[in-house]
Amino acid sequence: MTIGVRRRMGVEERRQQLIGVALELFSRRSPDEVSIDEIASAAGISRPLVYHYFPGKLSLYEAALQRASDDLAARFVEPHEGPLGARLLRVMHRYFDFVDEHGPGFSALMRGGPAVGSSTTNALVDSVRQAAYVQILSHLGVSDPPARLELVVRSWISLAESTALIWLDGRRIPREELEPQLVNDFAALAAVSAAYDEEMAALLREIVKDEPADGPFAHLAGRLIALAS
Amino acid sequence: MTIGVRRRMGVEERRQQLIGVALELFSRRSPDEVSIDEIASAAGISRPLVYHYFPGKLSLYEAALQRASDDLAARFVEPHEGPLGARLLRVMHRYFDFVDEHGPGFSALMRGGPAVGSSTTNALVDSVRQAAYVQILSHLGVSDPPARLELVVRSWISLAESTALIWLDGRRIPREELEPQLVNDFAALAAVSAAYDEEMAALLREIVKDEPADGPFAHLAGRLIALAS
Repeated sequence: MTIGVRRRMGVEERRQQLIGVALELFSRRSPDEVSIDEIASAAGISRPLVYHYFPGKLSLYEAALQRASDDLAARFVEPHEGPLGARLLRVMHRYFDFVDEHGPGFSALMRGGPAVGSSTTNALVDSVRQAAYVQILSHLGVSDPPARLELVVRSWISLAESTALIWLDGRRIPREELEPQLVNDFAALAAVSAAYDEEMAALLREIVKDEPADGPFAHLAGRLIALAS
Repeated sequence: MTIGVRRRMGVEERRQQLIGVALELFSRRSPDEVSIDEIASAAGISRPLVYHYFPGKLSLYEAALQRASDDLAARFVEPHEGPLGARLLRVMHRYFDFVDEHGPGFSALMRGGPAVGSSTTNALVDSVRQAAYVQILSHLGVSDPPARLELVVRSWISLAESTALIWLDGRRIPREELEPQLVNDFAALAAVSAAYDEEMAALLREIVKDEPADGPFAHLAGRLIALAS
């Protein structure tokens, strides 16, 4: 008889399995509401065995968040090919996929709270923001950004976060509309900065000069000119 | 001899004094680094007497944050007179005054962390965001905002927060430049939304129709047209 006999997992394999099970549960409901009992039951092991691998719920939550952070940061990676607007649009699509998959857990994390506000979780959130920042600079071909460009990129990242959070709260605007809107918001914030700073203006001209006439930036410009007239 | 003799304070007066002293200390350094001993010493009373009024540092921190939140929300209030851009610019000026006065405490609060991530502190932060949201809608003359307008206003509020936090981190861009930039960012985000939605376009036309030719919105439009050509 081998049917029904559970193969014994190695330590690292069991840890990885528990992280996967926990991430699934922490994604679907607020982490505050997920118990160790529930994680043990979903993993098919006893509660004491969970504690054998993780000293407590916070350490399991942090391990799950680490996996989710790695996953999200990997989605920011995009080949350096083709128009910038189209690249950013593809990243926005993968970003909303992630937000969609982890909705309640993403909301709970970003809105803060006792269960999720440890220094480790804050550091993980910051590391994902930093990964996004580094990717954007690399696509812009800038290694030593002036302060105004850093402000545009970092503040836009926070705009993308708040847009995703507002979307999750009722999903009243289709994400297919928000993804190109965020690409255009980036261009708009850069344009506002460029309107008052020559260095930013030169940078923006460099960025848009290779954008195609049917890309999102040109499309936005056309719509805005139509709106203004 | 009355010189040097300290008048006894009433309970509420003493509480208010302690809150003021604590807010001053929590504003100048990260709240994690401020001790009850230090607050007691700054207030000129003993440590046990502080505990007589507040059960612990968290409750004193929450009371100080409540006062700061009320203060900030009061700065959002602006007469319903004159062009909208100029009104928002005055609010941005008072907002940066507040951020300047409470720099390290503001950063610590908004970046989260164990000492500041209680459900009470999160609720206070949300209440200030909500106060800003309500004020903006009232100036726009909108009582039942469509989802796209709510998104523009709320995500712009988060943009203003992140801009202030980035400013505090080194102050590499003068605040006199960031205040009008945020006013223009609001117009830019609304314009992006309006470019793809007729209801937002109608609302934006209504907003800008009374803006003067020498106001920030018209100025931005002029700069952008110059930039695009």
